[in-house]
Amino acid sequence: MSQARPRILVSNDDGYFSEGLRALVEAVTPLGEVWVVAPDREQSATSHAISLHRPLRIQEIRERWYAVDGTPADSAYLAINHILKEDRPHLMVSGINHGPNLADDVMYSGTVAAAMEGALLGVPAIAFSLVSRAPFDFGPAARFARSLVASALSRPLPPRMLLNVNIPGGVEPDGYAITRLGRHTYGYAVSENIDPRGRKYYWIGGNEYEHEDIPGSDCNAVHLEKRASVTPLHLDLTDVHRMTDLAGWALDGFQRFIPDGR
Amino acid sequence: MSQARPRILVSNDDGYFSEGLRALVEAVTPLGEVWVVAPDREQSATSHAISLHRPLRIQEIRERWYAVDGTPADSAYLAINHILKEDRPHLMVSGINHGPNLADDVMYSGTVAAAMEGALLGVPAIAFSLVSRAPFDFGPAARFARSLVASALSRPLPPRMLLNVNIPGGVEPDGYAITRLGRHTYGYAVSENIDPRGRKYYWIGGNEYEHEDIPGSDCNAVHLEKRASVTPLHLDLTDVHRMTDLAGWALDGFQRFIPDGR
Amino acid sequence: MSQARPRILVSNDDGYFSEGLRALVEAVTPLGEVWVVAPDREQSATSHAISLHRPLRIQEIRERWYAVDGTPADSAYLAINHILKEDRPHLMVSGINHGPNLADDVMYSGTVAAAMEGALLGVPAIAFSLVSRAPFDFGPAARFARSLVASALSRPLPPRMLLNVNIPGGVEPDGYAITRLGRHTYGYAVSENIDPRGRKYYWIGGNEYEHEDIPGSDCNAVHLEKRASVTPLHLDLTDVHRMTDLAGWALDGFQRFIPDGR
Amino acid sequence: MSQARPRILVSNDDGYFSEGLRALVEAVTPLGEVWVVAPDREQSATSHAISLHRPLRIQEIRERWYAVDGTPADSAYLAINHILKEDRPHLMVSGINHGPNLADDVMYSGTVAAAMEGALLGVPAIAFSLVSRAPFDFGPAARFARSLVASALSRPLPPRMLLNVNIPGGVEPDGYAITRLGRHTYGYAVSENIDPRGRKYYWIGGNEYEHEDIPGSDCNAVHLEKRASVTPLHLDLTDVHRMTDLAGWALDGFQRFIPDGR
Repeated sequence: MSQARPRILVSNDDGYFSEGLRALVEAVTPLGEVWVVAPDREQSATSHAISLHRPLRIQEIRERWYAVDGTPADSAYLAINHILKEDRPHLMVSGINHGPNLADDVMYSGTVAAAMEGALLGVPAIAFSLVSRAPFDFGPAARFARSLVASALSRPLPPRMLLNVNIPGGVEPDGYAITRLGRHTYGYAVSENIDPRGRKYYWIGGNEYEHEDIPGSDCNAVHLEKRASVTPLHLDLTDVHRMTDLAGWALDGFQRFIPDGR
Repeated sequence: MSQARPRILVSNDDGYFSEGLRALVEAVTPLGEVWVVAPDREQSATSHAISLHRPLRIQEIRERWYAVDGTPADSAYLAINHILKEDRPHLMVSGINHGPNLADDVMYSGTVAAAMEGALLGVPAIAFSLVSRAPFDFGPAARFARSLVASALSRPLPPRMLLNVNIPGGVEPDGYAITRLGRHTYGYAVSENIDPRGRKYYWIGGNEYEHEDIPGSDCNAVHLEKRASVTPLHLDLTDVHRMTDLAGWALDGFQRFIPDGR
Repeated sequence: MSQARPRILVSNDDGYFSEGLRALVEAVTPLGEVWVVAPDREQSATSHAISLHRPLRIQEIRERWYAVDGTPADSAYLAINHILKEDRPHLMVSGINHGPNLADDVMYSGTVAAAMEGALLGVPAIAFSLVSRAPFDFGPAARFARSLVASALSRPLPPRMLLNVNIPGGVEPDGYAITRLGRHTYGYAVSENIDPRGRKYYWIGGNEYEHEDIPGSDCNAVHLEKRASVTPLHLDLTDVHRMTDLAGWALDGFQRFIPDGR
Repeated sequence: MSQARPRILVSNDDGYFSEGLRALVEAVTPLGEVWVVAPDREQSATSHAISLHRPLRIQEIRERWYAVDGTPADSAYLAINHILKEDRPHLMVSGINHGPNLADDVMYSGTVAAAMEGALLGVPAIAFSLVSRAPFDFGPAARFARSLVASALSRPLPPRMLLNVNIPGGVEPDGYAITRLGRHTYGYAVSENIDPRGRKYYWIGGNEYEHEDIPGSDCNAVHLEKRASVTPLHLDLTDVHRMTDLAGWALDGFQRFIPDGR
């Protein structure tokens, strides 16, 4: 095992066998010692679910390549706290996702959740997504991933760093932008059907994609500028600006204390 | 149907039949017209998972009380975009969770995810959790929930408002504090076992709870002060402070553009 | 604990809380000491599936009433080999199923599988099904179950006895018949649809019920005579009549031996 | 498409990608036009479960090779009633299972259930299992399968024919026997453990294999004689011998009718 080469952990939510993951592994292989720990089946839209109430299996597919019968967050947890416990990764990368993770998508995304679990456990992490539909050409996204990972590995990184990267599909992006999360919607449809036994069932979500035109947003960068977007995310969801407002609420029967004032 | 009374949507992650949910329903019933839309079985630690690839069932348990065979986020989505589509709720409450949702717990919590989905869909939302183990006494938590909901309903609320509330167990809290998310850990254990067929399996997570002593944090309020904590959360995960730092990275082969500069 | 009273194990596939199970429990309570061990959620059409690769939970709902997070066969296995290990049941009853289990239905039925697992483990077992659609009136079926169970408990039973009982719905059956399995079909439809994301999905099975008119069959008894059908099943699937025919096949490269001739 | 060549449907319960299935496909490819329709993931011990309450997906892996996100019985149903509806298979083969399906195993086996569903739908079917543990050498089993399938295809077959074949592992069997189902047990263990959150969980089933010494049984042929066993199964579970005995029972309050006597 090379002491000098950085250890890179790769995960995703599409499964250890997926094309996007293989493209990411190839992209970062020249940059370090690559370990794959990923779900054994497709786990899209599982968000940050973690399996506390059932045990997990780890299957060694080949050297430094493992499949976990759990969620993306389970995979990251087992990689960092078990498989690589004695020799923690320097960087975690997740993806390349078969589809976008822009704006509010990050709340639902398994690709982002894997990276987020890495960052929560102190491993700087980057999530990569290709803004495309099938057929997927991962070439440009993989080239961008290699360049960004090389740059990241060349500097000290804060342990809870988390970057969310989206690369436009179908073009060779000429560049990238440091962005904020935008806003978009798929429509808020619920479609209702009746099954052959006469019982109703419902499909969530629509197909009418729209994003707000917000300068500086990831949606704008990818959709309008055809550039890769790099959005830093943080792990502290506290909305400090609303704390002041809340302090003005009166609660019948309960006294408000200044935090830690005793 | 009363026009004047506010419509309150109740959900959770422990299931429509759970004791904590019933306590919350009772608490808010005097304050408005209550609708329950909740998972049909326990869904802890499912986080913000949403069911895009399979259909869902809705079962009417009784008037204004529905069970969904999906995640907490599925329940919130179907409640707001289907069941209550024509007559949207004024406020959503989620819980009362059987256990804490402090610090990083909010990343994994189904209770918080239900409320977060409400807020993402424009319904102000509050998640309630009881920091206790069985046996649970929901009385004090329910009284605090009623007081906070009454106060919330008495003022205009921003549509994407999201509050995360934890109430200490086993005491009557004398008050509350407006807090930030703290930091804690359950230990990073992975326990390894062998099943009767000779195959290894793994349990995630430990039992050695520790929280950092951070003044103003939710952990401090609940654990040290025995007060309810009210933490406002926001839905934009962008880490604006790290954007500047990232602008200093050089990426080989790719040019950085100023966002939306064309 | 009464020594004199027979111990009766009750299970089903609709879940420990279901109306049909409660009707069956009430029916047999005067006849012995009743124990319920049943799935914690609906498990129709799981057939004889058993959980070898994941662990199970047992939840004590109340005295002598348990829920298992597994299949009907799991429930029967844990009841007989764990919960009642030291004091095995004299008889197992399964049901009352919310719907028919006639003819080939027994291959798919979870209600029958629970009873079959009991019989395989040496506990004589009876499966009960109500041939009806909602709304279900379990009264007549429960009365028949009580009478049959009383008769069964009054005599020595072979350990691997398995009876499959169907009771017509909507009438008070004036009697019953000892029957054979008939033949029926629900049509062999597959309905094809497209989900909101543009992917195809399929529903199995149709709604065009037809049964062959076979004198002495369970279908005839229930559908034509409006009587309860009692069909004894056996656990040895060997088709002895076809053994002779097979002996006439020649297999290239392999010699046929008379069994156990050496 | 060849009119002259018989159409052979291959399925299993270990998944479309499994080594045992590939061995079976290779074995029968010279004998006809081979179609694979199999589960997309491992489905052992699912028995005859069929998915009536959720929709299924069919994924075309390559020409005449499909994966279904359901059970073995689902796969057989969709193959025969949808994919090959217009041009039904002449024979169905299932396996080669990674492990035995002897004696009562046929009740739980997904491999047998796939074949059984074929037979129920009128397609003669054969289930193949290799009585071995890893590492598996499918060579001898595949040779036996080819010989048996060739023989089967050379004659008219009854539509509901179902054969259950077990081949001993680690040896080249010199022959086979036409057998009956035997009797065996894995022990009736339930192992109890406590998870890291302090909750109990249970594993079903033991590891202490024993079979009864029954001349003419499949267990004897495979374990004692090291020969392949071919056991014909039938689909009518009626226990005709017990019908007479049952006719002697008196049921309080209910009259017994001679079937179809009106």
